[in-house]
Amino acid sequence: MNKLFTFEIQDRQGAARNATFTTPHGPLKTPLFAPVGTQATVKGLTPAQLETTNSTLVLANTYHLYLRPGADLVADMGGLHNFMQWQYPTLTDSGGFQVFSLAAMRKIDDDGVTFRSHIDGSTHRFTPEKSIEIQEKLGADIIMAFDECAAPYDFEYNQLAIRRTHVWANRSRNAHTRADQALFGIVQGGVFPQLRQESAAFIANLDLPGIAIGGLSVGEKKTEMYAMIEVVNSVLPEEKPRYLMGVGAPEDIVNGVLRGIDIFDCVLPTRLARHSAALTMHGRLNLMNAKFAHDMQPIEPDCTCYTCQTFSRAYIRHLIVARELLSGTLISIHNIHMLQRLMSELRMAIQNGNLDQYASSFLSNYEYKPGKTADTIFHELME
Amino acid sequence: MNKLFTFEIQDRQGAARNATFTTPHGPLKTPLFAPVGTQATVKGLTPAQLETTNSTLVLANTYHLYLRPGADLVADMGGLHNFMQWQYPTLTDSGGFQVFSLAAMRKIDDDGVTFRSHIDGSTHRFTPEKSIEIQEKLGADIIMAFDECAAPYDFEYNQLAIRRTHVWANRSRNAHTRADQALFGIVQGGVFPQLRQESAAFIANLDLPGIAIGGLSVGEKKTEMYAMIEVVNSVLPEEKPRYLMGVGAPEDIVNGVLRGIDIFDCVLPTRLARHSAALTMHGRLNLMNAKFAHDMQPIEPDCTCYTCQTFSRAYIRHLIVARELLSGTLISIHNIHMLQRLMSELRMAIQNGNLDQYASSFLSNYEYKPGKTADTIFHELME
Repeated sequence: MNKLFTFEIQDRQGAARNATFTTPHGPLKTPLFAPVGTQATVKGLTPAQLETTNSTLVLANTYHLYLRPGADLVADMGGLHNFMQWQYPTLTDSGGFQVFSLAAMRKIDDDGVTFRSHIDGSTHRFTPEKSIEIQEKLGADIIMAFDECAAPYDFEYNQLAIRRTHVWANRSRNAHTRADQALFGIVQGGVFPQLRQESAAFIANLDLPGIAIGGLSVGEKKTEMYAMIEVVNSVLPEEKPRYLMGVGAPEDIVNGVLRGIDIFDCVLPTRLARHSAALTMHGRLNLMNAKFAHDMQPIEPDCTCYTCQTFSRAYIRHLIVARELLSGTLISIHNIHMLQRLMSELRMAIQNGNLDQYASSFLSNYEYKPGKTADTIFHELME
Repeated sequence: MNKLFTFEIQDRQGAARNATFTTPHGPLKTPLFAPVGTQATVKGLTPAQLETTNSTLVLANTYHLYLRPGADLVADMGGLHNFMQWQYPTLTDSGGFQVFSLAAMRKIDDDGVTFRSHIDGSTHRFTPEKSIEIQEKLGADIIMAFDECAAPYDFEYNQLAIRRTHVWANRSRNAHTRADQALFGIVQGGVFPQLRQESAAFIANLDLPGIAIGGLSVGEKKTEMYAMIEVVNSVLPEEKPRYLMGVGAPEDIVNGVLRGIDIFDCVLPTRLARHSAALTMHGRLNLMNAKFAHDMQPIEPDCTCYTCQTFSRAYIRHLIVARELLSGTLISIHNIHMLQRLMSELRMAIQNGNLDQYASSFLSNYEYKPGKTADTIFHELME
C-alpha cells in the first residue's frame, strides 16, 4: 500500500471497527457515509453547505464527467477538487455501473464495453485501461477498478461477470500510475455465496489499498444483501477499508457497520430530498403531506443541521407545494446531516463498546420495510 | 408618519440622496435594491446565502402568498419574517399587478377585481380592503396600496386607472390598522406627463410614509421611463422615500438614483441567473457560451461574492450545460451581490459628491440597449 494511504484501526466491536483512512486530501474517519456529486456537484448544495453536514468523502461519477464536461477539461481545471471546490477527499467510480444502467445502448465483450451516450447518442468505449485513464485525469483520491455488475439472481451471468471483473481488476491495477490515488478493487457475484467467496479471494489477492463490494442493493432482499456482506467480509483482510457501493438507507448502514463495512455511498439522501422525503432517526417523513401544513416544528426536533435550526416543516411543505427549488436544498442538507449523525453515533458506539445495543435500539425505533432493499423501497417512492 | 418609520436624508447631490429609512426590522440605507422572494423565498437561495449578498429589504408577492400557502397560515407561523426566516425588513406588494399579469381571468370594476387563480382556476376577489387585510396578515414592514396598472400607451385606460388607483389608495389607507407597517401609495399614469403629475399630487396629498411609482418598465422606452420619474419626483415631497417598482436593470438603477429614487426591486438578477446570464459592472455575460468552457476566471474578477471567490466560469458553465440547479443558485448570489455593490458605490458617490462622474463613467462602460426598457430586453433574452 502506498504510504499516502494508511488504514489504522482504533476500536473494534465484533466485526465492526473504527479506523482512520488517510488520503492526500486529509484523513477519513470510518465508518463513513459519502454523499454523491454525480456531475461534480452534490445536487443543489454548495460546497459550503455540504461542509455543514459534516461530510468528508464525496463521490463523483466517471461516466457522467467523461461525457460532460470531459476528463481533459476537469484535468485542465486542476482536477476534480479544484473544479468543484471540494477540498476534502473525493472518490470516482469506474463508470461501469452507469454504462450498464444509463447508457442508451451497450455491448459488452471480454475487452470492454461499447455504449451510446444517454445525452446525445454518440458512441464510446470503456475498457479497464480507459476507465483508469479517465479517473487519473479526474484526479480523485480513491478510484475504482472497472467491473461488470450482473443481475443479482442470474447465476450464469454472475459467473461470467466475476471472471471479467477479475481480469479487468488486474488490468485496472496494471494501468494505474498515479501514486496519489488509491485504487480499490470490486467484488461481484450477485446473491451467490460461492461466487462472492471466489470473487473476494481473487480481489483480496491483488493487494490493493481498499476493496469494494459491488452489485448489492440492486433488487435483492435485505437478508440476502446482509448475508453477502458477511460472506465477503469473512474472506477480506481486516487491515483494509471495505466499501459497500451504492448503499445508504439507514437500516442498511447499521447492518453494514455491524458486519464490518467502513465506507458507504448513496444518492438516497439527496434524491429523496428532491422528492420531498426527509430521513429521520425514526424513519422517513413525506413533507408534502397535508398534516405538516401548520407544523411549526423542524423536520427533526433534536437535529442540529442548518435546516432544522432555521425552518419549520410548514415552511418546507410550502416550498414543496409551491415547487420552489429551495425545498430540495433544505431537505438535502438535513438528510445528509442525518446520515452523518448516524455515522458519528455508530463510531461512538463502537468506541464505547455498545454497538450491539445502539444498533438494536436504532433498528427497533426505525420504521422501514425489512423484506426489501433500499433500492426497491426507493423505486416505490419514486413512482 | 408613524414614529417606527423615519426617513432621514444624510447626503444630497442634485436630485439624488442618501438616507436611512428605519423599520421595525432595522434600518435601511437608501438608495437600495430589494431582491424578490415571490413565494417567501428568493428562488434558490437560503436566507444565509442572501445575507452574504448584502441585501436588506426583501419583497414578497401578496398574490402568490394569498393563493399559496394562504395569509392565515403565514400569520399563524408568526408572519412572513418568521415563516421565511428573513430577519431584515420585508415588503409586500398589493397583489394588483400579479392579478393583472398572471391570473387566468380578471374582471375589474370600480370596487375591485375578480380573478381566477393561475394555479387551480378557483375564483377570488381583491378589493383595497382585502389586499390590506392580506398584507396585514403577512406582516411585512412595508405594504402597498391596491392599484391598477394600465398599458403604458393607452391614455383613456390610464385616465380611468389613476381615478380608480386614487380611490383605492384612500380606501387602502382607511383599511390599514397595523402601526408596525408602513403603507406606501402608488403613482400611476402610463407615459403621460399630465396623468403622472395629477397622480403624484393626489398620492402625495395622502401623506403616507412612502410613495411608489408603478406602471414603469412594462414595455415603454427607457427615455420615457426616465422622463416619467422626473415628472413624478418633481411633484413628490423630498422628505419621503420614493420607490420605483419592478425596476432592476443596472442602467435603470443608475438613472433612477440620479433622478431621486430611493428604493428599487426586481426579479431580474435571479431570473437572469436561472437563464444562465450574469450581471457584471460592464454588462451581461451569457455563461452558457462555449467560450467560457475552459475559462478559469470567476464571473467577475474583482467581485467579492461567494460565487466569484470560489468558482470558475468553466465550472458554472458545466453546471448550466449539465442542467444542475446549483448554477442558478451560484449566479443568483453573484447577480444580487453585483446590484448591491452598485447600490453601495452609488451611495458612496453621493456621499463624496461625485455621483455625476460615477454615473457617467458607469453608463459609458456598461453595455446595454439604451432604446428599450429592462422589461423589453428581458423578454428578448427569455425567448
